[in-house]
Formats: sequence, C-alpha cells, structure tokens
Amino acid sequence: MAAQKPSIPKGTRDFSPIEMSRRNYIFSTIREVFRKYGFQQIETPAMENLSTLLGKYGEEGDKLLFRILNSGDFLSGVDSGEFSDPDHAALAGKISKRGLRYDLTVPFARFVVQHRNEITFPFKRYQVQPVWRADNPQKGRYREFYQCDADMIGSDSLINEYELIKLIDEVFNRLKLKVTVKLNNRKILAGISEVIGESSRIVDITVAIDKLEKIGRDNVRNELLGKGMDKARLDLLDPVFDMKGNNEEKLSFLKNYLRDSETGLKGIAELETVMGYLSLDPPLGTTIELDITLARGLNYYTGAIIEVKSDEVNIGSICGGGRYDDLTGIFGMPDVSGVGISFGADRIYDVLMQLDRFPASAEEHTQVMFVNFGEKEIQYILPILGILRSKGIIAEIYPDGAKLKKQFSYADNSFIPFVAIAGDQEIAEKKVTLKDMKSGEQNLVTVEELINMLKA
Amino acid sequence: MAAQKPSIPKGTRDFSPIEMSRRNYIFSTIREVFRKYGFQQIETPAMENLSTLLGKYGEEGDKLLFRILNSGDFLSGVDSGEFSDPDHAALAGKISKRGLRYDLTVPFARFVVQHRNEITFPFKRYQVQPVWRADNPQKGRYREFYQCDADMIGSDSLINEYELIKLIDEVFNRLKLKVTVKLNNRKILAGISEVIGESSRIVDITVAIDKLEKIGRDNVRNELLGKGMDKARLDLLDPVFDMKGNNEEKLSFLKNYLRDSETGLKGIAELETVMGYLSLDPPLGTTIELDITLARGLNYYTGAIIEVKSDEVNIGSICGGGRYDDLTGIFGMPDVSGVGISFGADRIYDVLMQLDRFPASAEEHTQVMFVNFGEKEIQYILPILGILRSKGIIAEIYPDGAKLKKQFSYADNSFIPFVAIAGDQEIAEKKVTLKDMKSGEQNLVTVEELINMLKA
Repeated sequence: MAAQKPSIPKGTRDFSPIEMSRRNYIFSTIREVFRKYGFQQIETPAMENLSTLLGKYGEEGDKLLFRILNSGDFLSGVDSGEFSDPDHAALAGKISKRGLRYDLTVPFARFVVQHRNEITFPFKRYQVQPVWRADNPQKGRYREFYQCDADMIGSDSLINEYELIKLIDEVFNRLKLKVTVKLNNRKILAGISEVIGESSRIVDITVAIDKLEKIGRDNVRNELLGKGMDKARLDLLDPVFDMKGNNEEKLSFLKNYLRDSETGLKGIAELETVMGYLSLDPPLGTTIELDITLARGLNYYTGAIIEVKSDEVNIGSICGGGRYDDLTGIFGMPDVSGVGISFGADRIYDVLMQLDRFPASAEEHTQVMFVNFGEKEIQYILPILGILRSKGIIAEIYPDGAKLKKQFSYADNSFIPFVAIAGDQEIAEKKVTLKDMKSGEQNLVTVEELINMLKA
Repeated sequence: MAAQKPSIPKGTRDFSPIEMSRRNYIFSTIREVFRKYGFQQIETPAMENLSTLLGKYGEEGDKLLFRILNSGDFLSGVDSGEFSDPDHAALAGKISKRGLRYDLTVPFARFVVQHRNEITFPFKRYQVQPVWRADNPQKGRYREFYQCDADMIGSDSLINEYELIKLIDEVFNRLKLKVTVKLNNRKILAGISEVIGESSRIVDITVAIDKLEKIGRDNVRNELLGKGMDKARLDLLDPVFDMKGNNEEKLSFLKNYLRDSETGLKGIAELETVMGYLSLDPPLGTTIELDITLARGLNYYTGAIIEVKSDEVNIGSICGGGRYDDLTGIFGMPDVSGVGISFGADRIYDVLMQLDRFPASAEEHTQVMFVNFGEKEIQYILPILGILRSKGIIAEIYPDGAKLKKQFSYADNSFIPFVAIAGDQEIAEKKVTLKDMKSGEQNLVTVEELINMLKA
C-alpha cells in the first residue's frame, strides 16, 4: 500500500504530553472540587440512539449531530426510490440509528429516567466527557471537545444555587484566576416583560438590553420597534435602560420597578436569598455581579442564570449554568427540576495559557534519568531504579547504549531536571553522580542522598 | 412529543457512581504506574479519517469499524446508479469519510508520523481512551470499551521489555491481584518452524502446540497433517510436545533443540536477558512463566510476546503486548520499532468484583451530611460546611427542609457514614451533634473536634 500522509478530521485535535499535563491539571482541579461538594461521577456512552438525541437541540442542533452509519448492510430495508427522494433526512434516518452525543445534558436526562429506580434523589451528579458537534470549525470552536458538568436534580432549594456558586468560586481560586460570577434570574426578565405588558417578548427584550452598551439606546429601540413592539410600552423600558449602580442599588431599583409583578418579585427574592447565603463566611474569592442582560439558555432556564467571565482575559464565558424545571419530561418523567453548571475547559485552558499561569507542577516530567553505559552498569542501576520508584520518584533509564550526547539531549528535550551517572568509580563506591541539568552542578551521592535530593 | 422509553445502543454501557469509583480506582492505579515509569500521556480524537483506519485490521476489522455519515448533504456527489451497485462498501466510502477509532495503536502510529518533528525519541507514551467496535455484543464484550496502552518506540533495547514487565508487576501488586506473566518470543517459534523445515507454517504450528493440552497429541497431529504438513517433519515436533519443567529446564531444552537456528537462539538469548534483568532486586511480586504456546499477535509481533493471566479467576488474558518492528511504515515512516502493552480494564474490573477485592477507599462517598432544619440552621451550618471543605473533607448539606426520615434515608442510601445535626441547643453551644450512621452513636462536638473525627 502506498504511504499515506496522515492527518486528522477537521475540527478535531491531538493532545501532546505537555498539553495533556495542562489539561489534566484543569480537569483534576474541577473533578476534585466536584467531589468535595458531594457530586458523584457518572459516564454515558459516546453513542446514543438518534431517537434520544433528535429534536432536543432545535432544528439547527439536529443538523449538527454526527450520525453513525448502521453497521452490516446499512442499505437493507431501504427502497431504491428513497435515494432519489430529495429529503435526504428521511434516508439518513433509515441508514443511521445512532449518533454521537451533542452535550452531556440530554444523555444525563436519559440516564436519570432509565435508572430512576436505582437513583437516590436529590441526585448530585458530575460528568466529564467529550461531546461532538458538526459545527464549522473556527478559532476556539472544535468538533470534539470536553464538557465538565455538575447538576443537582430533584430539589428546589436555593442552597443548590449557593453550593454551585461556592464550587465555581473554589475552582477558580484553585486555578488562581480572577473571575466575575454574573447572576440573573429568568423570573426578573419575565417580570420586566410583564410590567411593560409584553410578556411574550421576553427574549427580544433581554437581547435588546444586552445590546444596549454595544449599539446604543436608539438602535436598540429601533430594533424593538422593528419587531412590532408598541412605542408606549417601549418607553416603559427606559428606567431599565438607565439602571446603574452596585448589586444593592440594582436590586432596590428592580424591587420598585417590579412591584406589580409577582413573578418579578419572586425572582428578586430568590436572588437575595442566594446572595445572602454567599455573604456568609468563608468569604468568596470572586466577585458576584447582578447582570440582568444575562440571557443564556432563556428557552429552558426557569430561575437562576449563571455565567462566569474572566477579569483578566477578554474571552467569552468560561463557565455557565442555571435552574431548569423539567429535565426529563421528554422521556416521560415529569417534574424533575434542578440546577446545573458546565465548565468550558478549552477556554479555561486558553486563559491560563494567555496569562502564563499553569503552575510548574502541572507539567509532570520524569524527575531523574539514568545514563546507560552498558550491561555492567545496567545491572547496577536497575535495582536503584526500583528503590527510587518505590519511593514514588518518577525515574527512568535511557534504554539504549547510545552516545552520551544523545542521551543528554533526550533528557534535555524531555525536561528531565536531573541525570544520574554510574560508571566504574560510582559502582565501586556504591554511589551515583547526580547532575543538575539546569545549573550543571554535579554531586557524588549515596542512594539515600539521591532520594532525599529528588524528594526535596 | 410522546414520551420515549429511553435506552442505549446495544453493546454500550452507562456507568453509575459506584461503578465509576471502581473504574477510577483501576484507571488511576494504571495511570500512576505509567507515570512513575516515565510514560507520557497523549490523546487522539475519537474520529479518525477512514483512510487512516481502513486496511489496518484485516477484512474483518474493516467491517467492525463504526463509520460516521458525512455531515451536511451526505449524498452530494453520489451517482444514483451507485445505490443499486451491490457493493455497498463503495457507497459507504462515498457517504462516510470518518470512523470511530478501533484501537489505540493505529491512531498512535498516525500521531507519531504526523508529529515526528515534535517528538523526542525514544518516545514513551501512554493513552487511556475508549475504542469502538461493531462486534456482536456478548458477556464481557462491548461495542465501547477503554484501552490502557503504554508503548516505548524508537528503541531496540531489551530494557524496555524489562521496564514493561516491572510495570505490569507493580500495577497488579497495587491492585492486590495474583497474576502470572507469560513470556514468549516470536523468534523461538520461528526457530522451531525452521528446525523442522516448515518456516512458513509458524502460525499453524504455534496454534497446534497451543491446543495440545486441550485436544491431545493425536488430534493436533491430524490437524497439521490435514493442513498438508509432511509426516516426517511433524515427527520432529515430538520433543517440543514433550517439553516440560520450569523456565530453566525449558530454556535448556530449547537451546539444544534450536541449536541450528540462529533466529531461535536469538529468541532464547533475548528471553534470557530480560529474565536476567527481572531476577535483580527488587524482587517481582508476580510469577514469570516461559510459555511457547503464546501465539498472541503473531502477525505483527517480532520479538517478545507478553500475556498476563489471573492466578485466582478463570478469565482470558487481562494484559498483553509484545515487540514489533514497524509501527509506522504504513504511514510512510519506516523502521520505527517498539514494544507495548495494553491493560484490559473491563476484565480487571470483573476479576476484582469476583474476588470482592475493591478496597473500601475505591468507593469515595461524602463523609458527612448536615441535616437541614430550616433557614436559621442553614445560616449556622453553611460557614461550618466551608471550614470542613477547606480541610479537604467531602461534606454536604441536605438541600431541602424535608422530613428528617427522608434526610436520613438519603444519607443511608448514599453510604454517607456521618450525619451532623445542628438545632437550637447546638447553635447556642456553638457545637454540632455528630451521628455515626453505622453504630448509631451520637456525640456533641465542637467544629474542631468534628474535623478531627472526620479526618481520622
């Protein structure tokens, strides 16, 4: 067979050892905090039945599903006429019954319903797995990427919102990243729409508020008028456009503005409860900001809306989530409400890279490499290698009796900080020469001293 | 939309929290040892171009690949005549350009060639990721399963074989499993075939030797005669059929039997070198057994063949590997030799389950749950929760003000060993009541005492 020039599919990535170390640093930080807050890990298969996935992400989402061709004779049962049918979706449905998961939420909902009798509610689950989307790849957008989700379902308590924000706070404190946690509540947005008599336009109104700073009030007004909103009602939004100040000032304004909307007041009360919990000790490391322009997931979030932005790097949201009312209704199990968040590991990676803030410990290299002079030295070194490893030290021996220059350059390129050398003299004295690759300093040491130096 | 009864594709699995804890115990044990021996992690995409995968696993393997339907208009460029072509493989090739990876070896080979200029050789890589095969699901055989591979490439040194066997030894010692590491060398099998003048029949002969115990010598002989082997040559195999004894006795017999085969003697020398290294301190915890019936991967292994069997549970091999000469030739990069092993996590899981040998620590549960009496108590508890977590204790509060019975039954079902209670009296004394869920014992303790008890 002719040699192939190897490549990988568009929008997918290989991860090199150094990238893996950094990614593992992020994943293990998130996982450890998930665990500490009592979340339990589950995993679901990469493939789901298309009947599980289709119709859950809107028409656009359906198109972005990766479908798996049925195995065996995938054309069996397909009528030849169907090939000329211009509706290829129908044909696709016949020749593929499974697809790759698009997110972790729908598989989680499916999991909950399928295993409802084995689950203790409230159920706090986390899940860190890749998802696939046939999106157009671009900078920072991939066709395969990891999601890190934590959800607590089967409980309406606002303690859950508190817990998730504390968890977010701890993750970013551990990663030494300054972030702002933006909070909103869909009920406040519903209240605003209600107060101006435009309850059905909640999405338009929120999007408009969101654009205020970018395009100015006149353009926002024109946009809403263009969508058919009544001018008198639009005028009622002016005080919202004018809203300023810190969280307390905003809340105080909203309490007055929404005084006639039960829903709106409930949203404010929910926010106040969560913020009250968050004001208790121990203090947060991150800033909490009430932001009524937060419109994330408006079609399914019913209460809290959460979004996390870096204070240091201009990049989209690096974590987000919210409360929903009905996770599993589509699978025949109504009234499962909950609240969840999802960390964007790829963006967090970009932020840490840009700030050069991966700790040295995130790069786990071999600590010491033994030079290989030949058989006699190997016999001397292998037992020492065993002792070092039994002490938890990452150690290796250069496998081949190559030129010294090549062996040292391997250590250099592999970021190995120490090289140990054992020749006739060292063997006679039952010692090794340890070379610090950075300073060039060499010391003749016993195995015990070697262990202590490497452990330090 | 009508409610769907949710299910997952045949041959795939959901993993519950308890299963995940156990799986993580296995994966993290293997990963830690991989790291300690200087292996570096990489990851490759779930999807590879079909041009990378096809033709690498034989005709049967090609059929077991999961193919991904091209996204967008998958029928564009397909002539309507092609649908009636009975060769559906041709059509499949047009409507799908990507497939799910079938193993970790071919993607690794592709990775090495694609990134050859960034890699320092010898390259010691490990990879723990799922693979997919459209196999017929049956007990212990799944369509999605994890492989845990470690390979060292770009080095011919037998130290690599030693390192991998030491690594295997350490993994199974840590897992507290008694295993036997079976060793063979393809050159010995080649030598035997050469000595009897049947070099081309190496596979037939090995398979025959392997069946000896099961079906008896007469049947084995008949099988080989049926395949056209000359009777006189077959008689020359008798001493091999008769071979008995420990490793040294077998080696001594083979040295004599293979005295005229340079290849055979080289195989013996290689085995002896590796076993010599393994006889050095620190001693192995596992048994090493020379087993010339080991025929694993005969079509690509060129030197050492390794297979690990449980001494305690009758199940297939739980780890295996060997040395190969040409990993990357198919992608245009010749002469990359190496040696690798792969752990079978699913079978190791089954062995540990059957022996009830998962340690209690493999099941990571919340350590303490606070009962939720209401708002006043919540205000008292949340700061304590924060202190416990800052000490690394996995702690949670029951989110809802539910009946006590429900809260305790949640703790019970979630295997939470301690429940902490704070009512009026506790709050007044700045203490909590800690209940041991197993013994039923209750103690009124300070937060500091609580930390010490939970840390113990």
